[in-house]
Amino acid sequence: MFENSPINTVSLAKIIQDLNIKNIGNATIREVVTVVNGYEAANDDKFIRMEMGVPSLDPPSIGIEAEKAALDAGVASKYPMLDGLPALKQEGARFVDAFLGVKANPAYVIPTVGSMQGTYASFLTCLQSDPKKDNILFIDPGFPVQKQQLDVLGGKVKTFDVYDYRGENLADKLDEMLADGDVCCIVYSNPNNPSWICFNDDELKIIAAKADQYDVVVLEDLAYFGMDFRKDLGTPFEAPYQASVAKYTDNYILSISSSKAFSYAGQRIGITVISDKVFERQHPALQERYGIPSFGGVFVGRVIYALSSGASHSAQYALAAMLKAANDGQFKFLNDVKIYGDRAKVMKELFINNGFHLVYEKDLDQELADGFYFTVGYKAMSGIELAANLIHYGISAISLDSTGSEQQGIRACMAFVTEEQFPVMAERLAAFAKDF
Amino acid sequence: MFENSPINTVSLAKIIQDLNIKNIGNATIREVVTVVNGYEAANDDKFIRMEMGVPSLDPPSIGIEAEKAALDAGVASKYPMLDGLPALKQEGARFVDAFLGVKANPAYVIPTVGSMQGTYASFLTCLQSDPKKDNILFIDPGFPVQKQQLDVLGGKVKTFDVYDYRGENLADKLDEMLADGDVCCIVYSNPNNPSWICFNDDELKIIAAKADQYDVVVLEDLAYFGMDFRKDLGTPFEAPYQASVAKYTDNYILSISSSKAFSYAGQRIGITVISDKVFERQHPALQERYGIPSFGGVFVGRVIYALSSGASHSAQYALAAMLKAANDGQFKFLNDVKIYGDRAKVMKELFINNGFHLVYEKDLDQELADGFYFTVGYKAMSGIELAANLIHYGISAISLDSTGSEQQGIRACMAFVTEEQFPVMAERLAAFAKDF
Repeated sequence: MFENSPINTVSLAKIIQDLNIKNIGNATIREVVTVVNGYEAANDDKFIRMEMGVPSLDPPSIGIEAEKAALDAGVASKYPMLDGLPALKQEGARFVDAFLGVKANPAYVIPTVGSMQGTYASFLTCLQSDPKKDNILFIDPGFPVQKQQLDVLGGKVKTFDVYDYRGENLADKLDEMLADGDVCCIVYSNPNNPSWICFNDDELKIIAAKADQYDVVVLEDLAYFGMDFRKDLGTPFEAPYQASVAKYTDNYILSISSSKAFSYAGQRIGITVISDKVFERQHPALQERYGIPSFGGVFVGRVIYALSSGASHSAQYALAAMLKAANDGQFKFLNDVKIYGDRAKVMKELFINNGFHLVYEKDLDQELADGFYFTVGYKAMSGIELAANLIHYGISAISLDSTGSEQQGIRACMAFVTEEQFPVMAERLAAFAKDF
Repeated sequence: MFENSPINTVSLAKIIQDLNIKNIGNATIREVVTVVNGYEAANDDKFIRMEMGVPSLDPPSIGIEAEKAALDAGVASKYPMLDGLPALKQEGARFVDAFLGVKANPAYVIPTVGSMQGTYASFLTCLQSDPKKDNILFIDPGFPVQKQQLDVLGGKVKTFDVYDYRGENLADKLDEMLADGDVCCIVYSNPNNPSWICFNDDELKIIAAKADQYDVVVLEDLAYFGMDFRKDLGTPFEAPYQASVAKYTDNYILSISSSKAFSYAGQRIGITVISDKVFERQHPALQERYGIPSFGGVFVGRVIYALSSGASHSAQYALAAMLKAANDGQFKFLNDVKIYGDRAKVMKELFINNGFHLVYEKDLDQELADGFYFTVGYKAMSGIELAANLIHYGISAISLDSTGSEQQGIRACMAFVTEEQFPVMAERLAAFAKDF
């Protein structure tokens, strides 16, 4: 077993056993992190770490300086406005205009404690808007924690793996999923975590049309805003723009994270951009529950208030400054994160040269972009087997099983693999290929 | 009407009408704020503002400097640990030891996005721990937003006004409220918002005993930590301590806010301190829902994760530094906020000299402390009438009706009234008294 492994597999096995993890191929991200941390503490060699989907770059100085200036100005003692700092609302709307080519109302740009709070509040408010529509539809694969949010909330989940339903096929599948009229919200990420597929404009038009037809809100998770590096999406107010369903429907909520695109995950600050139609819409169920009829009134005045009374005051200044600099063309934020794409290009090759294949391979007729994640499989090995085997060669990643994918493979994340590690990675993959 | 009013009542009436507020005596805090802002923008005179329960002091430099140093060190790009910064957990437990005289486990000190997130997550986890116990019991009066949290969550509320149930009477009343076995959690604030009553140790022993008897978690909201200025509670590791139910039961969760005691409301950072017994307790309902049996495992790994993936990284450093300095005796945090108590002493006199009376007047045989709030009534006037009439004399406050109190009066908050305003306040109260 693991004959050519370059690592201390005895030590690894002991750590896995001590943590009482039955199948490391099926472990959660946090469990894998704990195992690898344990291994690295007990041994001299390092892992090729691809399990964590977290940024590894330094935060932009524009954000840091703005945040420190706000602290010096005394904002720390003052409650933030629930609906957000006016400058952040303004620059948020401008950002959507500059990089999506979509006009949004600054009043309906709401800061949230990370995109996590934005999606939680969106799911909750959608579910409460109409008791008959008690399902969220996930176009999978996706971010597992969003389904955990529904465990917490008590909402129901519908899901399908989009692998077999790209392009025109998407329309029929959405009809099938939406026909019962019990879905309040469709959610997907674009670019997609974990597969890095990007819906093209035709697909987004289909989603938009189905949302309108079945009266459903589309929650578009832009956690990896602009990171489809096949195109230069980084010039404000100039095409090409980040693709978005908001171009094709008024039934949208956009969740824009600062964590990856701005390397600002620590401060838990994002914005939720709600369309006029969704924000202003009156729902009898909300009127009855809260005495407030409008979606947006409840979202801000009840849900965000109840969850945290708003988001960190100084972090709002930081994000406002970063968005403004990006909007003004002075901060090329995508240049900073393009390194993830550069790594992906090399790492995909290393995998493929050693007998692996891409799982999610194309956007219809186009090669996938190189970005923050990609997915690989190996021969007929299941995703769980592959993750469990690879970790014994010093390469950690998670199986696709937890992401709603029905395909067999693993998710590889670029954040923590450095250029200096590429030769080691090549050796380890070769050793793996020799043994399997 | 309002014959001797010193303000422009015509302008005020128009603003109230324009905002479509039917009865200003019954308006929400935010509506009152909007009315008074509108009046002050349109007129030259200023209000005596007592409606907002928000801090007005500068944030402590210890917090600001620690937060800036953390930003300089690059924490903004790194996700915070879900269960919190080790230094904050450590100093949080030490703080509870130093100022409550209670030993807590650092591992079970969890940073939250303000106390607001702490109470939301606590209510949610308590409610999900046992489906038969679907009620939260409020010992009122209380903070209205906590009841709004249950509107959002979908939990049921039981409540009683403690006015008639101080001392020994509390035991029978709690028996009555808990007898059905459908309460999972008792919540109250101490010192109390809005009445500034403080339960004494005998009362806290009764609450503790009833919590144990009926197997209920006590959520003690310490939003105004240490601000019972009758005693000097500010010397670490020395009696007297802030009174707490945690001395008398293991069924506790403490919610400790940085907003008032540390004037740090803007950064949305607090800590939730969970007893060993509550944190470690296994609940079949949680196991079934999440695959995690323990209260604390779900609280951190599912609820806090789903709500926001933790709290602002830099703000955790700020609070850790403030708590450490307080614990070390180097930061006399209560000295900074004692000014609220000094104001209360004078302002109570101004009210009483003009024919008002305190509504919540005593802690059994003791005079109430002077602190962040007090409550006053006027003759036989209802709380709603009183608030509506007083605002026409340039004094804004909220009626007690929204707080779960059954008494007639208003809540007065000290934060925004300055010493220079006392003569104006005296004149306005005298004018009011002349007319009513």
